[in-house]
Amino acid sequence: MKDYIKIDPWNIIEEGFDPALHKVSESLFSIGNGRMGQRANFEESYSGKTLRGSYLAGVYYPDKTRVGWWKNGYPEYFAKVLNSVNWIGIDISVDGVAVDLAHIQPKGFQRKLNMQHGLLERHYTIELQNGNQLQFKWTRFCHITRKDLGVIRLEIAATKDCELTINSYLDGAVYNQDSNYDEFFWEQTSAGAYEKAGVVWVRQQTRKTGFKVLAGAKTQVQQGSEMIPGTLSSGEMRAEEHYRLLLKSGQTLKLEKYVAVLTDMYHQPAQFEDIVKSTISAAVDTGFEQLLEEQIHGWADIWKQADILIEGDDAAQQGIRFNIFQLFQTYNGDDARLNIGPKGFTGEKYGGSTYWDTEAYCIPFYLGTASPEVSRNLLLYRYQQLPKAIENAEKLGFSGGAALYPMVTMNGEECHNEWEITFEEIHRNGAIAYAIYDYINYTGDADYMASHGLEVLIGIARFWAQRVNWSNDKKKFVMLGVTGPNEFENNVNNNWYTNYIASWCMRYAAEQCEWLKTANPSAMNAISGKTALSTEEVSNWKHIQANMYFPFDSDQNVFLQQDGFLDKELIPVSDLPASQRPIVEHWSWDRILRSCYIKQADVLQGFYFFEDDFDADAHRRHFDFYEQYTVHESSLSPCIHSILANKIGNHEKAYEFYLRTSRLDLNDINNDTCDGCHITSMAGTWMTISKGFAGIRVKNGKLHFNPALPNQWKSLTFNLRFRENLFYIHIAGDGVQVTNTSGPDTSAVINGIEKHLPQSNPVSAS
Amino acid sequence: MKDYIKIDPWNIIEEGFDPALHKVSESLFSIGNGRMGQRANFEESYSGKTLRGSYLAGVYYPDKTRVGWWKNGYPEYFAKVLNSVNWIGIDISVDGVAVDLAHIQPKGFQRKLNMQHGLLERHYTIELQNGNQLQFKWTRFCHITRKDLGVIRLEIAATKDCELTINSYLDGAVYNQDSNYDEFFWEQTSAGAYEKAGVVWVRQQTRKTGFKVLAGAKTQVQQGSEMIPGTLSSGEMRAEEHYRLLLKSGQTLKLEKYVAVLTDMYHQPAQFEDIVKSTISAAVDTGFEQLLEEQIHGWADIWKQADILIEGDDAAQQGIRFNIFQLFQTYNGDDARLNIGPKGFTGEKYGGSTYWDTEAYCIPFYLGTASPEVSRNLLLYRYQQLPKAIENAEKLGFSGGAALYPMVTMNGEECHNEWEITFEEIHRNGAIAYAIYDYINYTGDADYMASHGLEVLIGIARFWAQRVNWSNDKKKFVMLGVTGPNEFENNVNNNWYTNYIASWCMRYAAEQCEWLKTANPSAMNAISGKTALSTEEVSNWKHIQANMYFPFDSDQNVFLQQDGFLDKELIPVSDLPASQRPIVEHWSWDRILRSCYIKQADVLQGFYFFEDDFDADAHRRHFDFYEQYTVHESSLSPCIHSILANKIGNHEKAYEFYLRTSRLDLNDINNDTCDGCHITSMAGTWMTISKGFAGIRVKNGKLHFNPALPNQWKSLTFNLRFRENLFYIHIAGDGVQVTNTSGPDTSAVINGIEKHLPQSNPVSAS
Repeated sequence: MKDYIKIDPWNIIEEGFDPALHKVSESLFSIGNGRMGQRANFEESYSGKTLRGSYLAGVYYPDKTRVGWWKNGYPEYFAKVLNSVNWIGIDISVDGVAVDLAHIQPKGFQRKLNMQHGLLERHYTIELQNGNQLQFKWTRFCHITRKDLGVIRLEIAATKDCELTINSYLDGAVYNQDSNYDEFFWEQTSAGAYEKAGVVWVRQQTRKTGFKVLAGAKTQVQQGSEMIPGTLSSGEMRAEEHYRLLLKSGQTLKLEKYVAVLTDMYHQPAQFEDIVKSTISAAVDTGFEQLLEEQIHGWADIWKQADILIEGDDAAQQGIRFNIFQLFQTYNGDDARLNIGPKGFTGEKYGGSTYWDTEAYCIPFYLGTASPEVSRNLLLYRYQQLPKAIENAEKLGFSGGAALYPMVTMNGEECHNEWEITFEEIHRNGAIAYAIYDYINYTGDADYMASHGLEVLIGIARFWAQRVNWSNDKKKFVMLGVTGPNEFENNVNNNWYTNYIASWCMRYAAEQCEWLKTANPSAMNAISGKTALSTEEVSNWKHIQANMYFPFDSDQNVFLQQDGFLDKELIPVSDLPASQRPIVEHWSWDRILRSCYIKQADVLQGFYFFEDDFDADAHRRHFDFYEQYTVHESSLSPCIHSILANKIGNHEKAYEFYLRTSRLDLNDINNDTCDGCHITSMAGTWMTISKGFAGIRVKNGKLHFNPALPNQWKSLTFNLRFRENLFYIHIAGDGVQVTNTSGPDTSAVINGIEKHLPQSNPVSAS
Repeated sequence: MKDYIKIDPWNIIEEGFDPALHKVSESLFSIGNGRMGQRANFEESYSGKTLRGSYLAGVYYPDKTRVGWWKNGYPEYFAKVLNSVNWIGIDISVDGVAVDLAHIQPKGFQRKLNMQHGLLERHYTIELQNGNQLQFKWTRFCHITRKDLGVIRLEIAATKDCELTINSYLDGAVYNQDSNYDEFFWEQTSAGAYEKAGVVWVRQQTRKTGFKVLAGAKTQVQQGSEMIPGTLSSGEMRAEEHYRLLLKSGQTLKLEKYVAVLTDMYHQPAQFEDIVKSTISAAVDTGFEQLLEEQIHGWADIWKQADILIEGDDAAQQGIRFNIFQLFQTYNGDDARLNIGPKGFTGEKYGGSTYWDTEAYCIPFYLGTASPEVSRNLLLYRYQQLPKAIENAEKLGFSGGAALYPMVTMNGEECHNEWEITFEEIHRNGAIAYAIYDYINYTGDADYMASHGLEVLIGIARFWAQRVNWSNDKKKFVMLGVTGPNEFENNVNNNWYTNYIASWCMRYAAEQCEWLKTANPSAMNAISGKTALSTEEVSNWKHIQANMYFPFDSDQNVFLQQDGFLDKELIPVSDLPASQRPIVEHWSWDRILRSCYIKQADVLQGFYFFEDDFDADAHRRHFDFYEQYTVHESSLSPCIHSILANKIGNHEKAYEFYLRTSRLDLNDINNDTCDGCHITSMAGTWMTISKGFAGIRVKNGKLHFNPALPNQWKSLTFNLRFRENLFYIHIAGDGVQVTNTSGPDTSAVINGIEKHLPQSNPVSAS
């Protein structure tokens, strides 16, 4: 828990430089444009503790796994988000003294993430031994529409004349701090200069995966109106632009660095050279000020659909904007090969890019804040990886087109390295099916079922049908050896959530097959042919679904998280000494596994997804039974609990959970923001507002609102995409005002009453 | 399954050289003397597939673990049996052609392990392009009483004159093939020659653990009566003795290599140089022939107590002698710091030296075949490591002197690297307590309880008392999250075996405390003081023991391996296609974990230990229920099942299991002998004879015999150590003849009838 970020509605601000907080700030102030991004590392050399990281969307490395004892079916590799060419580096020395904030204590240091405009800004003053005071002002951004472009501006002014040397460089000798065997993941790294274009370059490719990258940079330095000539040079894996000048007191040095980073995800390597030159040349011609304008416009377009305004609570306001900002700089939704890494471009932890977080948390966010294409691309990502999911299942011994989507992946192959997760945390398959339902329910894009969705549902239903077995003892179908969302338990039998979502998947797949058979017989025929699906198979899913076992305790009248849950020593979290929290830091894994403590919503995750299957009393009972044992040591926990707390009318708890989720990184609540921000849980924050406080649901193709604001909030205002409409929603006290700002006339259900919503006419309700 | 070893009662013989079998043979023909040993690698250079390994007792390396995701309480390192200086190397070339059996196909190749004398012998002929035929004859042994001494003799004869060059070397640049990060485990490796003594040497020490080693060698070469002069040289990490001579047809070259390998386990490093010179000098003075005599005598002393004679079944005969031989060359029992590595000196797999195999399998063997000191030393090993066992438990969150002995260890610290084993396979604690009971019951050394045993029992009972928890649901004490002996299940609740042995431990510890309080109040006082034991604590053990939960199914009338066992799909092993066996090779770990298949005795291990707690019908019921699902994919499985099969009168199955255990490595049944022999399971083989076919038990201080020989055996004859007596036992058909060959007059119970056994008078019964 930290509290050094200044509360401000549009900016993340750090005042004063504390090296102990630097790695946390490097995460928090990260910038990106969905294609590339990086941690808020300093441009100038810094010899203190830092985690240097520049990342390129889709570029990964299959690191050898660390497995104590390999067994059949273990994944072959653990894919790593790859630390790529460092393009921000600008070393500076003044009268021969290196500017290094680890050695020179800056004055008036401020680091600012301007979320409205997508800018990383920093300024400070240093004083040299001769009394010379130099002011530094840095601005950096990853251009939000020119996706390959990064831009840096530096301004320096001094109180005395001094000699400056500047070395603006590209560095290809970058390592992943989390490499399992300290390997260098790049090969064929070369560097040089296009002298005529005045551009230096570094070219390299990844070992094994062979991703090719070319980065080029052009730096321009001027004092007053005088352009300072530079010299280009290159060494092993590194290219540099050197400047030496006399900075006169009263004058300002202005440096601009234009960088293009190309990958073969988006460009033909044969054209790299031309494109890098033309991209940089176009940027130079446009000029810094105009590029900045484009950046501001680009972010304004995003905020227009996605912004949330909270009146009366600046901490909450800053929290939600930070979450939305980070999500949009991680993923823009224009490429179905990409997904949302758990740390986005803010760190390398957790390796691979795609977890079930995407389906369970991120898709609802993008559905509400962006074009349906974005969510559709996230679904297509999984559709494209269906053959790999079938392969994953085959590696474990499943057959006949059963699909097990990976827990962690880059290209569809499983690449986590713990059996208790890869083999067992299979509920992810359910979330992937649920996302199809969610997408169609929200967008109304029913065609997606026939074109893509049903094939995925069939693969998933087949998996579940093979994964259960008939228990002669229970006379029901059971599911043995799983890990639920609560990863503080491994290898349990009959995790209620997994059994429930598996059962739902089989029913949903069967229903959709039957529906499509009537609605579009030829489409269904084609799918049956392609997937070799028989009617017996569909009947079998229904049979299993109707005979599934769900652990239940009649004394407590609750479903049990798994068989034997009540054998545990049940001590509420409130009785744990604070000194033992978080338990994952203070307890052995042995103790955690055997304890009753729940890392994140497990049974309650099922209540969240399938709320209409349970009455209000069941919600209250299960929330009260499980929340008392929940330690929320996953970033994904507080958001679900906030939504459910709202649902059962516990608004105080809902607000408490909201603050925890929305400021998780800003306050470094889990003490791990130094590794990167919790990007996917940020989508959960958005859900606490939309599904929680605003009480938004989609039922039978209509939006429903049941808002209940926290007492601390004067009003809540936001835009929401829903089908053809964009709504402007303003909630204050008990009143709701909904404006259908674009799209055809429509209606919505507000507090249970259907309201006509003609275009542009605000409609109020209470 | 392989069948290339010639059946012979005293020898292991390989006729003809097949490179594909070489690594298996390297394991099978391993030699050692309890202090050092090595795989049957060729002395001459061999460029084919080989696993080179020379090992020194007690010298290990704490290799960094491979853990995908480190969690609190995981062991810091995985101790590795260390491949040490290669002292056997003797490179030979003939007229410039290297003798390398990967390139020159030998004729008349024979490799022989002479188990009676403890010799590795090998001979073959090679023919060169000029028609010259050279005969090679190798003999090698690790001297059984001069523990630091290794001896090699080579004889070469040629049909044509030829030039021989010989390079006899010591090589310190040796790696562990199973190093987790391809590290070199040695440091400060230097080499040189003591010119005056004609001895070359290599000195080195292990990284981290700092074990110091000095190896010295002196090679003597003579043709006829002519001694060939050599030259000494040394390079980096390697020292050599070179010989060059004209070998005349009709003459025999004789080479003798005397090697001393010293470690600081047994010698002061400051004296290494003197000792290595004096050891070698004494060996040279004694001469090869006399050393050979000593070797034969030394092994005769072992066989006198330990040999087993099986008439009418040479395969069975060879099997049991191979097992006994390997055990005695692995562990002699003269040093309580040593233990019995799972591969002995035959390979590096499984890392650390000590598993629960020692207590469950090896101690009964050494009790019956060697002085009680040997078993006592094995118990003292654990006694000395009690403080580390308490530390191990503390790392997991236990307190108050609770002791958790490690699953795998070198120095008492846990050093396996899978949580499902280290945290969970805690039944090992029970076996360690059981061994104390077993030792005292067998030897009558009741003083051991007060002097050492009880402290260990108290630590173990304390662990169990904290490891269980009260289940409000079951109104019993339960034990959650364990792995039983059947490692094909992980993280189960209420493994019956673990609950049973835990319960027994608590009862036994409490009984012994109460007994000692009466028998020797001051001793008990001292122990209570030292361990801060209260009477309430002892009462609590009894309370838990009396209220322990044991999973039971009343329909089948069997104890259940764990909660939920009957939820599995129960298909007998006999219904599995042969193509899917062994399942550990053919199935994913996911499929194995969820299956009903049992790797080794689990519930039945409890019936084996606590047989008197269950009636004959319960034995039969449980054997029949569980054996059908048992795949015996642990080397430790068939022996226990053989003993139990005998007990329930299923002699055919008992014999089938006997062959499987006794010839496990000779026939490479598990297809992994290439990695090393299964040393600890060899003690299980001995138990199948003593406890199985001979039906030997110790009850109330008396030996009981209830023999039942397999039909294939004409007779079974063996010696048995029991307390002050050595018995000679001859069983043939239904008759038993027992001779009390040394020690006072005594009695034994044969087939239920007590017989007086005066010294030296054979007593017959039937």
